[in-house]
Amino acid sequence: MPSPLPFVANLRLVDHHCHGVAGRDLDRSAFESLLTEAKGPGPLGGTLFDSQLGFAVRRWCAPVLDLPPHAPADDYLARRADLGFAEVNRRFLREAGLAALCVDTGYPMDTLLTPGELGALAGATAHEIVRLEQVAEEVAESGTSAEGFAGAFRERLAGRAASAVGLKSVAAYRVGLDLPADRPGDAEVTAAAGRWLAAIEAGAPVRLADPTLQAFLVWCGVDLRRPIQFHVGYGDADLDLHRCDPLLLTGLLRAIEPTGTPIMLLHNYPFHRHAGYLAQVFPNVFVDVGLATHGVGHRAPALIAELLELAPFGKFLFSSDAYGLPELFHLGSLLFRRGLSELLRSGLDEGVWTEKDAERIARLAGGENARRVYGLEERH
Amino acid sequence: MPSPLPFVANLRLVDHHCHGVAGRDLDRSAFESLLTEAKGPGPLGGTLFDSQLGFAVRRWCAPVLDLPPHAPADDYLARRADLGFAEVNRRFLREAGLAALCVDTGYPMDTLLTPGELGALAGATAHEIVRLEQVAEEVAESGTSAEGFAGAFRERLAGRAASAVGLKSVAAYRVGLDLPADRPGDAEVTAAAGRWLAAIEAGAPVRLADPTLQAFLVWCGVDLRRPIQFHVGYGDADLDLHRCDPLLLTGLLRAIEPTGTPIMLLHNYPFHRHAGYLAQVFPNVFVDVGLATHGVGHRAPALIAELLELAPFGKFLFSSDAYGLPELFHLGSLLFRRGLSELLRSGLDEGVWTEKDAERIARLAGGENARRVYGLEERH
Amino acid sequence: MPSPLPFVANLRLVDHHCHGVAGRDLDRSAFESLLTEAKGPGPLGGTLFDSQLGFAVRRWCAPVLDLPPHAPADDYLARRADLGFAEVNRRFLREAGLAALCVDTGYPMDTLLTPGELGALAGATAHEIVRLEQVAEEVAESGTSAEGFAGAFRERLAGRAASAVGLKSVAAYRVGLDLPADRPGDAEVTAAAGRWLAAIEAGAPVRLADPTLQAFLVWCGVDLRRPIQFHVGYGDADLDLHRCDPLLLTGLLRAIEPTGTPIMLLHNYPFHRHAGYLAQVFPNVFVDVGLATHGVGHRAPALIAELLELAPFGKFLFSSDAYGLPELFHLGSLLFRRGLSELLRSGLDEGVWTEKDAERIARLAGGENARRVYGLEERH
Repeated sequence: MPSPLPFVANLRLVDHHCHGVAGRDLDRSAFESLLTEAKGPGPLGGTLFDSQLGFAVRRWCAPVLDLPPHAPADDYLARRADLGFAEVNRRFLREAGLAALCVDTGYPMDTLLTPGELGALAGATAHEIVRLEQVAEEVAESGTSAEGFAGAFRERLAGRAASAVGLKSVAAYRVGLDLPADRPGDAEVTAAAGRWLAAIEAGAPVRLADPTLQAFLVWCGVDLRRPIQFHVGYGDADLDLHRCDPLLLTGLLRAIEPTGTPIMLLHNYPFHRHAGYLAQVFPNVFVDVGLATHGVGHRAPALIAELLELAPFGKFLFSSDAYGLPELFHLGSLLFRRGLSELLRSGLDEGVWTEKDAERIARLAGGENARRVYGLEERH
Repeated sequence: MPSPLPFVANLRLVDHHCHGVAGRDLDRSAFESLLTEAKGPGPLGGTLFDSQLGFAVRRWCAPVLDLPPHAPADDYLARRADLGFAEVNRRFLREAGLAALCVDTGYPMDTLLTPGELGALAGATAHEIVRLEQVAEEVAESGTSAEGFAGAFRERLAGRAASAVGLKSVAAYRVGLDLPADRPGDAEVTAAAGRWLAAIEAGAPVRLADPTLQAFLVWCGVDLRRPIQFHVGYGDADLDLHRCDPLLLTGLLRAIEPTGTPIMLLHNYPFHRHAGYLAQVFPNVFVDVGLATHGVGHRAPALIAELLELAPFGKFLFSSDAYGLPELFHLGSLLFRRGLSELLRSGLDEGVWTEKDAERIARLAGGENARRVYGLEERH
Repeated sequence: MPSPLPFVANLRLVDHHCHGVAGRDLDRSAFESLLTEAKGPGPLGGTLFDSQLGFAVRRWCAPVLDLPPHAPADDYLARRADLGFAEVNRRFLREAGLAALCVDTGYPMDTLLTPGELGALAGATAHEIVRLEQVAEEVAESGTSAEGFAGAFRERLAGRAASAVGLKSVAAYRVGLDLPADRPGDAEVTAAAGRWLAAIEAGAPVRLADPTLQAFLVWCGVDLRRPIQFHVGYGDADLDLHRCDPLLLTGLLRAIEPTGTPIMLLHNYPFHRHAGYLAQVFPNVFVDVGLATHGVGHRAPALIAELLELAPFGKFLFSSDAYGLPELFHLGSLLFRRGLSELLRSGLDEGVWTEKDAERIARLAGGENARRVYGLEERH
């Protein structure tokens, strides 16, 4: 993985799925816990700096903070504290080289930057992605009835969607991806809403985890013709990864296909080859390897090459899935550029495509696919 | 992936699983739809020429039609039309360098070439593979009873098998691979046949999709001691890929093992490592990565290397799984040769095996394994 | 995969999971059957020397027996017979370069060397790993009651564990890894023990295969705060590999996490990326690719790189999983060193880590992680 190809290095990327970063300073424990999908390091397992991602931080983020590459973790964290979060955020967002960001606003943390603030730091256009479950939970909290839930949700979603470019389902985290293949009927939705609202009434936390309702949410999104992102594959320890294989969505994808609504499969690791297959056989399915791109450090090129075995180049997008740490915008961008370059260079070396072809593939993956699917140009 | 090793380039291959190619001219839409496992390109996803397989066509097929490598898709299709299907078929079949082909005749398309016609174009011996479900559906259509089905099927299969070298199950497409581990009893078969025939009587299409009956078909094949091919892994969007993991066959393979009947696991992507494990632990299981070999373009070497991590070299075969487009014979052959060469070359570079060993492995995979398992020599 | 990095070549490794080797001479059939996870070669599949592992034996083991690299299999076996098992065992154990071994004593074969004998040959400290199921089966054989089983097992396990450094579950082989997530209650355990003892009474072999009881065994191990090894992923044909995905353990791992008891996921192939994810998100989960490291021959570096995409370097251990053949100690060690070196070298070449970092990673994986988790230093 040598340096990126010049025409990849120069691309201003569209990051079609990311989150806010922390608007406050972070101590070592808070920093390490945002570096991993675990709650934090354990007493026997050592520091999270001893991982592919940890080494990527020391190697590629240290210079952005004016440190030499490979600066020790303590030096890195000290320098980070000296500069302060505002300057650190500014540097990494700018370094990412973004043209636009689509920000999932549905997983709040205190002091998380807003899409507008992120965009300003990045010098990029900011768009919002609305999380379906969050809207449903707002509806439940606002005091609806079982019968009224469906209508109230549709109305509130239409309102939220009006200023958003896409929607997102976190069914993976709540019930897994084995959602009903067919659109749930009204009576089913009402019954499921009734059970959920009764549980809340009885003191349960307002957290949607019901396959019928989550499928209903997705279909409401389909009706709005907005691209729908799905969390797929790995995430933190709350998730049952064997329920997050994108192939479990096959029935639902088959049912949605005739509508033409774009379905965006996010992350996908370690099932990214499965996702690539779905992107090939369903004309409306698109894929990325966000989160994993920075999560696996210098192994990112392997994932991109595997995903693109079957996924057509017109179906592949860039996302950072950055959350909390602005470093992840920089690393996501850098490792995507290096990974894509490695694939393109291998094809050039073997004469599989021309330089002109390679440039076109890079433009598609780096932004044109996202612009086309989300209709970004039309909005700005 | 530089050019193939000379002793691999010179092999005349046995293609142990392929289909006919179109005996008519194809417009762009028909051509693209045969390039992918999807029904065709979608409005948002771009052309299928922008995929690993699409670039492989432009790179390696264009010169066979006297065009420069990387000729644009439109030029390619225009030249193809100029030459006409007969000449195009002739060129690509000849280019594939085949000694023999085993043709699955069970998935008819209008104007598909027969095994004999394919063999004549390729300068290769042609053999037939009989699809079990097709024979069962012929029996159902010919008007049998629930009680008579088993006997009628056995008789018809024996007739068809007499001139064939192997059989094939497409249970993957119909019910998935989680077939009953044990041979279904007579009463079970009769009951299942009764349900199926009644459904046909009531107007259902004559399409077998019943785990009991499909397991019964396989056991009839076992009784005939003919190698039985299974579609495994990816295919088109009609298939539930998570039901097509070859590991789901484990119980059935364990039951068949004592009979010694060869079981041929086809394609296997993205579960090819799983298939390699089965090829190691079951003495009668054989594997390939056909379909995927051309489907992933210049990534083919990765698949072959992964399959052969556990699969012994005496258990690995070549197949193109070409269907419809003669290009796929050429690409399957070329990418198999390059992929196998890359693995062999890496072993030579690291001193893992000698050149003599590498030549022997190439001969096994390129044809000797197929000849031994299907008994091809004895028939010609 | 060129030669190992000097600082990896010089490491004395801790092999945290292995078995005894045969204390007798082996004919070709016995030798080949120990080279594979199958019962042995089949009539159609050729010799097992024609596999990645077979070539690794000829390439890297022949010189240890004073033969040239690539010596033919017959020469190899003849030389092996000439030297006699004692000398062959001595040479390969010494060649492995081990500092310590943790020997699973629960899968006996006649004439298998004891931990002490292995340690003496290897010049290494020997430790014992106690197999939970073996202890339970001893309790069942000794004549307990349903009510008495739990207490008798706890007592016997505490006795066996006193001189051992860890425990092991082979639930994968018996019922798969989809064990109950929560600790079984006393009544459940008594009822399950009653069913098992009644079956034995009625003539069934004394072989534990019950999810409730096997989960109970694991929890008894947790109570003893000893690291618990799980067989995960591939093994011989007795195992249903699709039930051996480590992700099936997610619920149980989540329940065990608060106790901090180390869980050691062994082998993991072909699910090693899944295991790497678990090692990242659960602070008490550790992983290796033993068995596969030698099983895939010169492809070992690919597995190690894939495992370490997500697994932190403080969670990765070396094991050979050698069984029966002393060659497997040598090959496991050699291919681990080469695989780890290839990953470290790729990081060095790309500037991802410094040489000092790489040396530290090597020390962690080669022994420090094992010493810390099993508390080996404290015992010697």
